[in-house]
Amino acid sequence: MTAFLDRGVAAGRRERLRIRAGDFAGPTAGLAPGNVQANLVILPQALAHDFLRFAQANPKPCPVLAVSQPGNPRLPAAGEDLDIRTDLPRYRVWRRGELVDEPPEIGHLWREDLVSFALGCSFSFEQALIEDGIELRHISRGANVPMYRTNIPCEPAEPFAGPLVVSMRPLKPADAIRAIQITSRFPSVHGAPVHIGLPAEIGIADLTKPDYGDAVPVESGELPVFWACGVTPQAVIAHVRPEFCITHAPGSMLITDLVNSRLASL
Amino acid sequence: MTAFLDRGVAAGRRERLRIRAGDFAGPTAGLAPGNVQANLVILPQALAHDFLRFAQANPKPCPVLAVSQPGNPRLPAAGEDLDIRTDLPRYRVWRRGELVDEPPEIGHLWREDLVSFALGCSFSFEQALIEDGIELRHISRGANVPMYRTNIPCEPAEPFAGPLVVSMRPLKPADAIRAIQITSRFPSVHGAPVHIGLPAEIGIADLTKPDYGDAVPVESGELPVFWACGVTPQAVIAHVRPEFCITHAPGSMLITDLVNSRLASL
Repeated sequence: MTAFLDRGVAAGRRERLRIRAGDFAGPTAGLAPGNVQANLVILPQALAHDFLRFAQANPKPCPVLAVSQPGNPRLPAAGEDLDIRTDLPRYRVWRRGELVDEPPEIGHLWREDLVSFALGCSFSFEQALIEDGIELRHISRGANVPMYRTNIPCEPAEPFAGPLVVSMRPLKPADAIRAIQITSRFPSVHGAPVHIGLPAEIGIADLTKPDYGDAVPVESGELPVFWACGVTPQAVIAHVRPEFCITHAPGSMLITDLVNSRLASL
Repeated sequence: MTAFLDRGVAAGRRERLRIRAGDFAGPTAGLAPGNVQANLVILPQALAHDFLRFAQANPKPCPVLAVSQPGNPRLPAAGEDLDIRTDLPRYRVWRRGELVDEPPEIGHLWREDLVSFALGCSFSFEQALIEDGIELRHISRGANVPMYRTNIPCEPAEPFAGPLVVSMRPLKPADAIRAIQITSRFPSVHGAPVHIGLPAEIGIADLTKPDYGDAVPVESGELPVFWACGVTPQAVIAHVRPEFCITHAPGSMLITDLVNSRLASL
């Protein structure tokens, strides 16, 4: 077991060092397989406490894996030697809600009041589903998962408020039941689905028109299954238009030392 | 914990003694709440081994809670002082597949080659669903759960073979997801659903025409959720037409000393 965890730490550190050195600039999918990859949000301290309250009140879309001290670029709960300023391949910099830059590192933008959040991402539970033999349509098609704004409001924590965003995976009914069992074991990476089968009931009028990501077909004999999505906090932050904010660039995730299977609650 | 288990034993024994004395002849629903109630099948030894093989190969419709020794009317795994000849309010006696009697006790029919099977029943998981606040339509309407023959074949164990029979409960999607989580904890009383949402996929053409039990409406905003059903072994046995067989009469179950919550695997 220790050897296994050591492999998780070693694999995470190896990939982060490669990225830190500027030797890897692509999307992180497939790097350090088995390791948890996380969404990144960096906010000024003035907003960080409210955002943490929002995340605490909405654990399904906003599962917090690690939070930094203000001004400290380390995130030891996610990786011992991790430096949040250099260890992702690409970042997005936002000023008052506008995307202003996509730099490969953020050392020059660092401030003493910045707080970093690592949020769980569906990569972890998707690995568990694939290992169980369940086909995920968007992955087979090399597409992004389709995501939709719902009519389900998040629990507000002023100034953060907004609708739940969900990701959708089409599954045969028996696979859907198995996927509910599997993802229930992973509450720290979105957990069990929030809805199944009846998109109109959660305010989704047309599955072929996702609000984010790519449409994928729901075949005859399949049900659409909906999970709370990490785009929810991004959409909520965009709505608040903070004076300054940094996030990961899409697909360019934070590779942690945590091991997916160790997130399982059962 | 011991006191709790003692209550389960005391409640089971109290109700069985009342039934044994002839003081209770009605359906057993609601008696010894919290105690496991079981389906009963009694077969001649010549068929019992094959039936046990069938049950072993089909644990979702045929979850075996206890099996007796041949000729022994005791079933200590289900209740210490239990006498299978007298402890149910009503029995059904079958000869070559024909129902020939519905006696209140079967001492006069006992044979040295009879083997008794106590099989798990959905009462146990329904109690867990109701305690979680999930409405079960057939119970609110005072009806029997609707049951359907499917196009899913059971794993055969000659001479026992036939289609899986399922029970259906209409649920809102979020309740369906919760019900999958809850019933997954109870593998010895049918476990997780086998299907959800698309009845035609398992050979059910018309939900308003169940093969057993009463039709209940599936309202707008609800999905039909299907569990493997204890009628499956009854249908399979009826098809084999054994020279002699005894079962419980519908609704007149075996009250055991087991406690529902102790069946939970998690």
